[in-house]
Amino acid sequence: MVSHDDAEAVITDSAAGRDYLDLAFEHRLHEVIGQGRVRSDAFAAAYGQLWESLERMATGGKRIRPRLLIGAYEALGGTDARAVVDAACAMELLHIALVIHDDVIDKDLMRRGELNISGTFALEATLRGAHRRDASAWGEASSLLAGDLMLTLAHSLLARMDVPEARRRAALDVFDDAVFESAAGEHHDVWLSLHLEPATLQDVLAMVDQKTAAYSFRAPLLLAAVLAGASATMIEELTAIAREIGVIYQLRDDLLGVFGQESETGKSTLSDLREGKETLLIAYARSDPAWAEVDPLFGDSDLSVEDAARLRTVIEASGAHVFVESLIADRCEHVYALVRRAELPEALRQQLIDVTMTCGSRR
Amino acid sequence: MVSHDDAEAVITDSAAGRDYLDLAFEHRLHEVIGQGRVRSDAFAAAYGQLWESLERMATGGKRIRPRLLIGAYEALGGTDARAVVDAACAMELLHIALVIHDDVIDKDLMRRGELNISGTFALEATLRGAHRRDASAWGEASSLLAGDLMLTLAHSLLARMDVPEARRRAALDVFDDAVFESAAGEHHDVWLSLHLEPATLQDVLAMVDQKTAAYSFRAPLLLAAVLAGASATMIEELTAIAREIGVIYQLRDDLLGVFGQESETGKSTLSDLREGKETLLIAYARSDPAWAEVDPLFGDSDLSVEDAARLRTVIEASGAHVFVESLIADRCEHVYALVRRAELPEALRQQLIDVTMTCGSRR
Repeated sequence: MVSHDDAEAVITDSAAGRDYLDLAFEHRLHEVIGQGRVRSDAFAAAYGQLWESLERMATGGKRIRPRLLIGAYEALGGTDARAVVDAACAMELLHIALVIHDDVIDKDLMRRGELNISGTFALEATLRGAHRRDASAWGEASSLLAGDLMLTLAHSLLARMDVPEARRRAALDVFDDAVFESAAGEHHDVWLSLHLEPATLQDVLAMVDQKTAAYSFRAPLLLAAVLAGASATMIEELTAIAREIGVIYQLRDDLLGVFGQESETGKSTLSDLREGKETLLIAYARSDPAWAEVDPLFGDSDLSVEDAARLRTVIEASGAHVFVESLIADRCEHVYALVRRAELPEALRQQLIDVTMTCGSRR
Repeated sequence: MVSHDDAEAVITDSAAGRDYLDLAFEHRLHEVIGQGRVRSDAFAAAYGQLWESLERMATGGKRIRPRLLIGAYEALGGTDARAVVDAACAMELLHIALVIHDDVIDKDLMRRGELNISGTFALEATLRGAHRRDASAWGEASSLLAGDLMLTLAHSLLARMDVPEARRRAALDVFDDAVFESAAGEHHDVWLSLHLEPATLQDVLAMVDQKTAAYSFRAPLLLAAVLAGASATMIEELTAIAREIGVIYQLRDDLLGVFGQESETGKSTLSDLREGKETLLIAYARSDPAWAEVDPLFGDSDLSVEDAARLRTVIEASGAHVFVESLIADRCEHVYALVRRAELPEALRQQLIDVTMTCGSRR
C-alpha cells in the first residue's frame, strides 16, 4: 500500500514524480471508493453491489482530468502530493457522477459496450422475476443514488484538503463552478434535443463549453493552479486555453459520434443520431436545403442502420463534416498561439500542446 | 438584509436568540439559492427557471431539520451564529435534494398538491409542443440536475464553515454519513417495493431508520453537538435518541400515507398503496391470511378508490393499524425515558420531548 507520506516524500524527485503521482492517484481513488464498499457491508446486500459497481467503474477510464491536473500541478512547481492526489480524485469522482447521471437522463443502459449501473441492476432484477417497468425503475434509482454518492465523495475529499485556507477556498470555488456550469450545459443540451426552438451555432458552442469544457479542462487546470499558488494572470491565461481545448475535445467527440469507428471509440455511431443530439455538425447541416428531407429521421429512437447512412450522406454533402474538421484545425492553431504567448513554465506549455493535439486528432 | 455579523451579536441574548436564528436561517437559505439564481442569468433561460423553482421550493417546508439543529445548538451553549445557520441551511438543502431525487425515483410529478420540478418543466414543454415522452424526460432531467445542485450547495456551505478544524471535520463526517445512510435506505426502499423477496419487520425498520431518521434527526442533532463541542457521551446519547425519534416519525408517516386526511397531510392516501410501499404497517398486515386476497391490488399503479378502501379494510382488520399505533406509543415512552436518563441541558431535554410528541401525534 502506498501511503500519503510516501507520496509526499517522492514528489520532490521530479523525474519519478509524475509516474509516482499517477500511481498514488489510482491507489487513492480505489481506497476512497473501497472504504464506501466496506462500510456498505452493514447495509442491504444490493447496496454493497452498488458500491462494487462503482469500484469497477472507477477502474477504467482515460483519466484525462486527473492527468491534466497532476501534470499541471507539477509543472507549476506544486509539491503537496497529498493535496494534488485528492484534488485529482475529486475531479475523477465528479466525472463518474456526471457520466452516471447523464446515462439516467439519456435512459442509457450501456456505456462503452457494457451494461452500465442501470443496465446491470435492471437485468438482475429481471432475472429474479421483476416486471420490466419495475426492473427499469430499480436500475434508474440505483444509478441516481450512485451518482449522488460519487458527487458527495468528491466534495468530501476537497473539503478535507489540508492546505492553506485561502487555497482551499479557491479550490472549492473552482469545483463548485464546475458543477454549476456542467449542470447548466447538461440542462441546455436536453432542452436543445427537444427541438422546440432552432439552435444557433453559438447556442451549441456555449452548451458544449458549459457541459464538457468547464469540468474536463478548466476545473482540473484551475485546481492545479490555485493549489500550486499560481498568479492571477496565469489563472486567467489557463482559463482561456482550457476553454478552447474543451471545445476542440467536444467537436471531435461529436464527429466521432456520427462518423467514428465503433471498434475504436467503443460507442455506437447510431446513438447520437437516434437521440437527436444537437451538435455544431448538425446545426451546420440543418442549413442545407437537403436536410428537410431527412429531418424526420433525426432523433428517431428506432432509426435503422440504412436511414442512419442516409443522414450521414446528407450531413457529409452539406459540408458540415469538412466545416467541423477545419474548425478543429483552426482552434488547435489558436490554442498553440495562446500557449506560446502565455507566461507558463515550459513543461506546462508542452503538456497543453500535447493535450490539444490528442483532443484534436483522437479517433 | 441580516448580515452574519448581526447574527453573531444577537445569539448572546438567549431570549431573542432562537427567533433571531430562525430568521437568520430563512435569510441565509434564500441568499445562497438566490446567488445561484442570479448567476444563472448568464446561462440559458431554462436554467434560470430551474433556479427560480428551487427558490420557490425552499420557501415552504416544515423546517424540521434546521429547527432541531438550531434549538439543540443553542441549548448546548453554542454561540457561533454564522456556523449554526450555515449548518442548518446545509441540512435543509440536503433535504430538498433528497426530496427532489426521491420524486425522480418514484416518477412523481406532484408534491403536496402542486406540480413539482419534473411536473412543472414537463408541462411547460408539452404546452410548447413537445411530445409527451420528450417532455417527461425534460422534466426528469431538470429534477435530477436540480437535486445535484442542491446537494452541491449543501456540501459547499459546510466545507466553508469558519470553525476550528476538528469541529469542521467532525461536522463533515456527520454530513457524509447522513448522505451515505439515506442513500442506503432509499436504495433498500426501492428494492423492497419490487417484492422479489419477503420483507421482515426488521428489514423495514432498518430501511426506515437509514432513509429518514439518519438525515432528519441524527444528522441535525449531531451537527449541533459537534459544532457546540459536546462531549462524546452526549453525542452517543443523542445518537440513540435521534434514532428512536426518526422511527416514530416514519411510522406516523406510514399511517398517514394510508389512513390520513388528504386535506391535512397534503398527500394522497392512494399513492403509497399504488406504489406498493413496504412499511411496517404492510409487513404486519401481510401476516394475516386475508391479505392473500387483496395482495394483487397492492402496488397496482391503477388502483381504484374502491379497491384502496378494500385494502384499508384488510389492513385494519389484521390489527396492523392498532399494532403500529401501540408501537408508536411504546417508542415515545422509550424516548422519554432515554431523554430523562441522558445528561443533557434542560432546554434540550424539553426540545427533544416536544419533537417526539409532535412526531408521534401529528396528523
